[in-house]
Amino acid sequence: MQKASIVSIGNEILTGRTIDTNAAYLSGKLLSIGIPVVSSYTIGDDIDLIVRALKLASDDADIVLATGGLGPTDDDLTRQAFAKFLGAELQMENELLQKVQNFFIKRNLKMPEKNKIQAYIPVGAEALSNNLGTAPGIKAKVKTKLLIAMPGVPSEMTQMFEESVMPVLKSRISDQAIVQIRLNCFGAGESYIVENLGNLMQRGRNPQINCTVHCGVVTLTILAEADTHSHAQQMAQKDEKLIREKLGKLIFSKGDKSLAEVVGRKLTERKKTLTVAESCTAGLLAKLVTDVPGSSNYFTAGWITYSNQAKISELKVGAELIGEYGAVSQQVAEAMAQGARKKARADFAIAVTGIAGPSGGTKQKPVGLVYICVDSAQAAHTQRIILPGNRNAIRTRAAQTALNILRLFLKKD
Amino acid sequence: MQKASIVSIGNEILTGRTIDTNAAYLSGKLLSIGIPVVSSYTIGDDIDLIVRALKLASDDADIVLATGGLGPTDDDLTRQAFAKFLGAELQMENELLQKVQNFFIKRNLKMPEKNKIQAYIPVGAEALSNNLGTAPGIKAKVKTKLLIAMPGVPSEMTQMFEESVMPVLKSRISDQAIVQIRLNCFGAGESYIVENLGNLMQRGRNPQINCTVHCGVVTLTILAEADTHSHAQQMAQKDEKLIREKLGKLIFSKGDKSLAEVVGRKLTERKKTLTVAESCTAGLLAKLVTDVPGSSNYFTAGWITYSNQAKISELKVGAELIGEYGAVSQQVAEAMAQGARKKARADFAIAVTGIAGPSGGTKQKPVGLVYICVDSAQAAHTQRIILPGNRNAIRTRAAQTALNILRLFLKKD
Repeated sequence: MQKASIVSIGNEILTGRTIDTNAAYLSGKLLSIGIPVVSSYTIGDDIDLIVRALKLASDDADIVLATGGLGPTDDDLTRQAFAKFLGAELQMENELLQKVQNFFIKRNLKMPEKNKIQAYIPVGAEALSNNLGTAPGIKAKVKTKLLIAMPGVPSEMTQMFEESVMPVLKSRISDQAIVQIRLNCFGAGESYIVENLGNLMQRGRNPQINCTVHCGVVTLTILAEADTHSHAQQMAQKDEKLIREKLGKLIFSKGDKSLAEVVGRKLTERKKTLTVAESCTAGLLAKLVTDVPGSSNYFTAGWITYSNQAKISELKVGAELIGEYGAVSQQVAEAMAQGARKKARADFAIAVTGIAGPSGGTKQKPVGLVYICVDSAQAAHTQRIILPGNRNAIRTRAAQTALNILRLFLKKD
Repeated sequence: MQKASIVSIGNEILTGRTIDTNAAYLSGKLLSIGIPVVSSYTIGDDIDLIVRALKLASDDADIVLATGGLGPTDDDLTRQAFAKFLGAELQMENELLQKVQNFFIKRNLKMPEKNKIQAYIPVGAEALSNNLGTAPGIKAKVKTKLLIAMPGVPSEMTQMFEESVMPVLKSRISDQAIVQIRLNCFGAGESYIVENLGNLMQRGRNPQINCTVHCGVVTLTILAEADTHSHAQQMAQKDEKLIREKLGKLIFSKGDKSLAEVVGRKLTERKKTLTVAESCTAGLLAKLVTDVPGSSNYFTAGWITYSNQAKISELKVGAELIGEYGAVSQQVAEAMAQGARKKARADFAIAVTGIAGPSGGTKQKPVGLVYICVDSAQAAHTQRIILPGNRNAIRTRAAQTALNILRLFLKKD
């Protein structure tokens, strides 16, 4: 069985300036294809420390994934450390130089002299292309071990990993019959879900079921290992069925689909349109909706009505409603949704009004109180929730909950 | 000089189930009192791996901080690993047992038998009390080295660190002085900035200057080390001055302030208001503006006009402008900004229109083309940019660039 070790490189991680999300991302991705991560090393930008970590990591595992230290500055020493570890010289590759230069030419910029170093790669190693930045990755083999270096910038790293590294890893584990199924849930906490699944989540069980949480989404990963692929698939599917029976409509997607994607697909299928009227989330809900490519097919317009005046003038919310019930109320949420739906001539509207904090809360209307209304020509459904956490957590959870309410609303029809 | 190394223990970190925020927290705290973290190890719940990591960490550094693996389950093996590393037996301490039992008694619960293990500690080591959970920490000395184990639950760890660990560390470093200054830049790439700073960023120099990038923001960290605090401060401030001379208005803040916070503070100071009209960013710009607590003082309303129709009906953009120049054009950006500013009766408006992709690009108007207009009663300033990357990167960079244009606009007045 193939195992992996992760090496995170960069002073900024050790100084606590950057939280190392790369290691967590990679661990999750590796696990999803059945490669356990057995260790992880974080070191500063120092050639000898990097070399030592590469040595430890390649002793621990068959696959070593390093991130960071591929930039153009004197701090960036991963390239040099890889060369030292491999016992190879760094050599300039014209093709790489061309790519780095093109990055700047496209942007009408002159390539700084410093960036030239990014065209160097250890002799015998292979470059991995970077479509988002100037730093190419490095792929090298030492006997049976595979070593890969990727940039530390998360967007560049994830794209390189998906495009160039994942296929290589998959080909290495073709004889491992591991099937992975991911189910995404929204609407209940991790502990509720874990308790509900009971023995299914026991350690050492095969399939193994892991649980992760991100922005309120609880993701269950079923990992089945067997002698043949079809057997592993059977096992995973059996568990999927069991989990679906236990969790029902809490599960909103399989694989990678976000709540916004699920909602978007449903709207597209039914040729329906959506608009939003946001107060406390103030753009975040629209942002999530339009994160989805092709969302212009069902989303045309949205309103951010942060002040009472904007709610009144833009969405025709009655001033007397705000006066009587307050801006954070069921009545105002409903009026906002209806106003937006009519103005955008949309089939559905979501309105969100609440108190994101840190100030503005009262005993009756505490920080975290949010009203969400999903409105259509046929019906309006409003939910009152109280969300924990800071401003950012409240806004994120409110926007996700809004999408989830629309999902359940669309499910019913 | 005292150095530290961090050991994070737990399968949940390696499987990507938990992002290890503990290590980042500890690194930041240690650095703030002048203790650099030179390495960090993450391993699973395995006695031998923990012992090996403790050995590596105590070779690297004077202070070893371990987190995780102190719970009551069979998975939790840090206690046993500490005993093995120290060459000492685990011994039950009655006082500790009492504390663990009290935790349950207070909550009207019976202590599970499993929790009894938490009253055990290696002979010669000292327990650190945990006011939020059942797991006490461990403090041990091996010659001049200090080894500490804390729980993995972040709230328990941070409280134990602040209460019991920080005072011990401070007493160890009374003769060290480190001062840190952070400067945030926007509007130029990392390599441009680094090249501009030249020798200042040389390795081994004191102050040491590090450079990190996040969402287009380049952050420079000046780290000065000296015999006294005031001397270190002088050195750091001297470098700050040098950097400010070289980078000028590229620097938008010191410390942690985001572009949106800087813009927000300027608007507040001048009692000015802001509105937004977003097409391709579709809510993201408003979201960034309202991430700032208190933004309701200067932000009242915003429009997401994704379709041409919405631009026409909501922002009074002339249909003929869109027909002649296209929705992604300087003319339409200006009309959007002006329309929003008038409708919101705001002092400033930012409009963003562009092609975020992945589809919709043409040879003349490629994916990544974005027009940003900042409009006021006195003047309008429009910028045309071509951004690299995927949909997410383009949207993020466009919104940040929009805030930066407003920042520079506000600077001029």
